[in-house]
Formats: sequence, C-alpha cells, structure tokens
Amino acid sequence: MREIYLDNSATTVTCKEAAEKISELLTEKYGNPSSLHAKGLQAEYEVENARKVLAAHIGASPDEIFFTSGGTESNNLAVIGAAAAHKRTGKRIVVSAIEHSSVLESAKYLEEQGFDVVYLQPDGSGRIREEDIIDAVDEKTILVSLMTANNEIGTLQPVSSIRRAVKLKKSPALIHTDAVQALGKLDLKQIRSSVDLLTVSAHKIHGPKGTGAIYIKKGIRIIPIIHGGEQQKRIRPGTEASELIAGFGAAISALPDIREGHKQIAELNDYCKQRLKAINGVYINSPEDCLPYILNISVCGIRSETMLHFLEAHGIYVSSGSACAKGKKSHVLSAIGLDNKRIDSAIRISFSRYNCAEDIDCLCAALESGIAALAKSK
Amino acid sequence: MREIYLDNSATTVTCKEAAEKISELLTEKYGNPSSLHAKGLQAEYEVENARKVLAAHIGASPDEIFFTSGGTESNNLAVIGAAAAHKRTGKRIVVSAIEHSSVLESAKYLEEQGFDVVYLQPDGSGRIREEDIIDAVDEKTILVSLMTANNEIGTLQPVSSIRRAVKLKKSPALIHTDAVQALGKLDLKQIRSSVDLLTVSAHKIHGPKGTGAIYIKKGIRIIPIIHGGEQQKRIRPGTEASELIAGFGAAISALPDIREGHKQIAELNDYCKQRLKAINGVYINSPEDCLPYILNISVCGIRSETMLHFLEAHGIYVSSGSACAKGKKSHVLSAIGLDNKRIDSAIRISFSRYNCAEDIDCLCAALESGIAALAKSK
Repeated sequence: MREIYLDNSATTVTCKEAAEKISELLTEKYGNPSSLHAKGLQAEYEVENARKVLAAHIGASPDEIFFTSGGTESNNLAVIGAAAAHKRTGKRIVVSAIEHSSVLESAKYLEEQGFDVVYLQPDGSGRIREEDIIDAVDEKTILVSLMTANNEIGTLQPVSSIRRAVKLKKSPALIHTDAVQALGKLDLKQIRSSVDLLTVSAHKIHGPKGTGAIYIKKGIRIIPIIHGGEQQKRIRPGTEASELIAGFGAAISALPDIREGHKQIAELNDYCKQRLKAINGVYINSPEDCLPYILNISVCGIRSETMLHFLEAHGIYVSSGSACAKGKKSHVLSAIGLDNKRIDSAIRISFSRYNCAEDIDCLCAALESGIAALAKSK
Repeated sequence: MREIYLDNSATTVTCKEAAEKISELLTEKYGNPSSLHAKGLQAEYEVENARKVLAAHIGASPDEIFFTSGGTESNNLAVIGAAAAHKRTGKRIVVSAIEHSSVLESAKYLEEQGFDVVYLQPDGSGRIREEDIIDAVDEKTILVSLMTANNEIGTLQPVSSIRRAVKLKKSPALIHTDAVQALGKLDLKQIRSSVDLLTVSAHKIHGPKGTGAIYIKKGIRIIPIIHGGEQQKRIRPGTEASELIAGFGAAISALPDIREGHKQIAELNDYCKQRLKAINGVYINSPEDCLPYILNISVCGIRSETMLHFLEAHGIYVSSGSACAKGKKSHVLSAIGLDNKRIDSAIRISFSRYNCAEDIDCLCAALESGIAALAKSK
C-alpha cells in the first residue's frame, strides 16, 4: 500500500539533501564545533554555513541567528528571555489566544511569576484584529507575541502591523513571531524586518527534528534560559548539534523558490477544496486566503480520531489537530467559535512539495468510504 | 594521512549502528512521535524503546528518563529545576568548583536570583573530600551537584557518599550528578541508585550531538525550564527528536561490556602513560585511579595550542582543555593547584574503543618531534 502523508504541519520527511548532509557530519565531519583542531573547525564551518544560509533566507545577518533544539525552545527563549530582560520596564505581555502551546505555556509560566498576560481572541477566521492589538498594547507592555501562520487552520496574522500599534501607543514592547509554520512557505524577509524576535524550526521544512533557531535583532537584549559554555555568545550554550544544524541548512538550500512552491501548493489546496465540497457532510474550517499548506476540515458526525484511524488503515496520514496537543480539544477551533460537533470531527490536512493531485484523489475517495462506513456503524 | 582522533571527551564519531538508525528515522520512520496515526506510533515506538534501553543501562525505570537536547540542558534542568521546585525549603546549593560550565553557570544564575551557592574545592588530585561535603550541607541545602567523573582530568568523585552526608546533616537536599563523561565507561547503576537526578549525553558515547537525557528519580519534583506541549509529562515538552533519541538508544546498545571496555582502555592508558614518561618534559596531570578514558598531560615549555596545532598537522586530534571553554585557562587545573606553566601547556588526550596502541605510538612520536621542533623555535 502506498503511503500518503498529509500531516506535514506535524512533521515532514527529511529531504535527501538534508539526510545526506546529516550522515556526512555524523560519520566524517564529526568533530565538536568548539574544538580548536581541524576536526572541530570542519564542523564549525558547517554550522556557520548553515547560519549564513538561514540568515540569507530570512534577510537577517548571521550574527542575529542562534540555533536551539527546536521551535518550542526558541519560543520559550523569546517569551521568557524577553520578559526576564525587560521586567523592570513593565510586566505586561500580549499574546494571541491561538498561539502554539510553547508560547501559551511560557506566558502562563510568566503569569505565575507575576506578569500580566493579555490573550487576544481571534475573529471567526482565526485572525487577530489590528485594533485589538492597539487596544492591548500600552507603555508597560514589554512583549507582543503573535504567530505568523496558525498551525491548525493556517490563518495568517497581521504581524507586520504590530510595529505600528507599538509606536502608536508609545510602547517599549519587543515583537516576537512564531514563524514555524511559515518558514519555507512564505517569504519571511518582510515579516522578519518588522519584528525583534522570530522562531523557526527545521523539521517542518524537510529538515531534522531536534533543531530550530531564533532570530534576535541586533541590539535586542534577552536573557538566556540555558546557561553554560561560550557557544553562540552564551545566548544558547551547549555543544552545537552540528549534524542537525548542517541538515537544517541543507533543507533550506533545497527549498524550491518560495513563490513557485506556494503556487504549487495553492493549486493542490484549491483542487482538494473543490473535491471536498462535493462530499456531503464535509465542512471547511480554514479561512479563505490562509496559508495553503494547511487545510482544516470537519467531517460532521464522525469523531476526528475515528476518521483518522479509518484513513490510516488506507495508508493516509492526517492529523486530528496539533500533534503537540495529542487528541485534546483544539483551543484554536474553540477560539474561532466553532461548535463542539465541528471541533470533535476536525481533521487537519497539511501538504508538502512531495504531495500530488493523486494523493488528494485517494484522500477524498477514502473520506467518502469512511463517511459511508462510519456513519452506518453509528 | 591517517586521522588519529584522541579527543573523545569533546565528542565522538557516531557509531555505525547509531548512524544507520538515525538515517532510518529521518527518511522512513519520520513521523512525529506525538501523531496519533501509525506513522507517529512508529516513531514513538523508537523513542520509547530508546528510553527503555537507557533506563535498563543505568538501572532505572523508563518513566524516570526524560530526553533533552544534551548534557548542558539536562544540567540546567537539574540545577535550576530543582532550585525552583524547592526554594521554599531553603536557598543553599552545594556544587564542586570543577563542575562543567553548564552546572557552574546555572549555579551562578541562581546566585543572581538570591540563592547561596557553596563551591567545594578539590584536593590536588581533583577529588572533593567527603568531609567537605558533610561540612557544606545543612538543613537549608536543597541541592548537591557533583559530577561523576571530571571532563578534563578524569577524577572520579565520591558521588555515592553524598547521601550519607545529607542524612547525617538532616538535609533535605536533592543529589544530582553530571555523568556525561561516565556513561558507557563506568557501571552507573550504583551511582544512579544513590542520586535523585543524573545527566547523560549521547555524543560522548558514539551517539549523535543534540540529545541527552536526565534521570529523575520517581517522586522527585523539579520545575521544567522549557514549557509547551504534553510531551514527556511536560518535564521536557517539544517534539521529541526521535531520530536522535533512537540513535542514542542504538549507541547504548552498541556499547561493549562496560567492564571489558574499561579494561581495554585502562591498558591503552597504561601503555600511553608508560610511553609518555619516557619523554622528557612531559608531566601527567590526571591522578592515579581516575577514569582511564581521559589522560591530561603537560608538555612543559610549549603552549597547549601550539602543540595542539603541531599534532593536528600530523593528523592527530587532542584538546587543550574542555571544548566548551575554547582555549580559556582551565578552572579545573587551577583548582587542583597546578602552576601556570603546567596549565598553559596542558593537553587532554581522551580515548575511545576505536583507538589502538598504534595511535599511541603515533602520538608519542609526534609529541617528541613537537618538543624538538617547538623547543628549538622558542
């Protein structure tokens, strides 16, 4: 049975280029990048090369890039690190209510430490209103954190307009965006230029799990959450995972042109939506004009997990929500006001460049059989 | 030119078993271990299998093992996490002055937060005296952190006797040991049974960089330093780096019998010492009865880096200290009372199971040429 992987927002297959690079570093260029000898320099060169590749990709300078163990750590470093560095200026933090759990739980941790966290609610399409950001931000606000694209429904957020709100309200707030779902899918240069801190991860773009990065704008001060050696200017000490970082660089280099990649996936998404609309009982939860890589639907009357396992039996892999929430009721679908029936039957389809129209055909055929079989058995 | 890698305490080449396992997970079993479908379960199985392998290796239960991004993160989680969880009981922490930078810098961070840190000084062999531990520990002490084996000179610490000190002084202190240099080299079961928290890392035992673990004894409470999804009981959230974790497991499984491996390296170390003693101007800094995998020497009159680069030109890789300190004056060699001449000319030779007597012959021949060439050029 052919495997059809449509859960690319959870994680992706590692591309050939990244897998080969990782293997090369594991067995040949295996030195510690901090070692002073040639074997160390060889690994350090690979790390610094990846840093340049990522920096160029988002229009940053290499010394603004710090590698971490992934999106969760980068988000923690951004939120907790910024709060720790600027708590004397103010203790107010503004985040959206539909951030990734690593931002929400970091914010919750800060609340326990005496910070005042404002959770902005999205509209029905999952979008945070610019006027709500303006309302929320004040002179005591030290951080605004808003994701670039939502990981469950794909809604794009008005990240580029936060700076205006911050200026308008004479706020000292730093701006952070979790761009984990946007890397490789949107041109991040403009968004990067409008924020102070930006989170990315390798394993959503056909790179390895276990590495990500944070962009920290030159001159912006945050306090590390991990302490140790002198690696990465002490912002993120610890032996750099050189094989993963080099693999991350290789995965970025292997990305197709962003605009062309986006066009290919938008066509696939359109085709999928068109096919899905013809199936009775299927509702589209993702808004129009969202990131085409994510398509959230509900198959009314059939619980997400039931359908997920039915599809799995046909070799088709989708998600019932975010992998990090593992089957819990989606806070995102609740926040956009879907009723429980829609939430309980939600399925996230997420595409990569390795998907094709035939995958959609198989998915839709399986969904139809699923509806027939599972509705009967109710 | 044949490469002779004698810097195995900095990092190691990934063994075939681990490299193959990593490759398998990157390109075949690439699912997110938190995904509910078969592709996720496949990855989760590999993660849980590695957890069992590590647990069995140190005599722990799998639910006492939490994977992290490496030794540095595990040490931070142990020290900062224990302090955060128990600060209402007391604010005193006891560490040795020759811990790894990730323990020392975590302790320094806690000092800034109002904790009282006692730094125990070693004797001339690098060993912390049991009576000093007893003296330092009191009813307000919440943590004692002492490494199992020192990373620069190999001294073994009296970790198993800390419990006695803690009991004697009626102290509530948790006991942590950084066993990064000891994993795979000593039977850790007894040490594990005498501590509450234990740090290990994969890349020192022919596993990949970017993963490590912390053992947290059942019932022991620490507060996470990274917040997010529900992975690993929230002690360490974030998508598990399944390929690295599986690679870590494979590296542990590929370890030779600990006693036999130790014997092989002890013989190599003895041979090396015997050859070195015949070279004029070479001093042994490592104490007798230390971990045989590490042999610290000084080549008097020749600066560490000069000799390091001379050896490198002969394809021989050693270290001038800890890779994490990158050329800075060693705090360990200072603490054991060596004079500046000895410290400035120190070289760390560190062995793995892939080294042989011929490597030692080449090293000693190169050291002799180095002494002749470099002493002349002074």
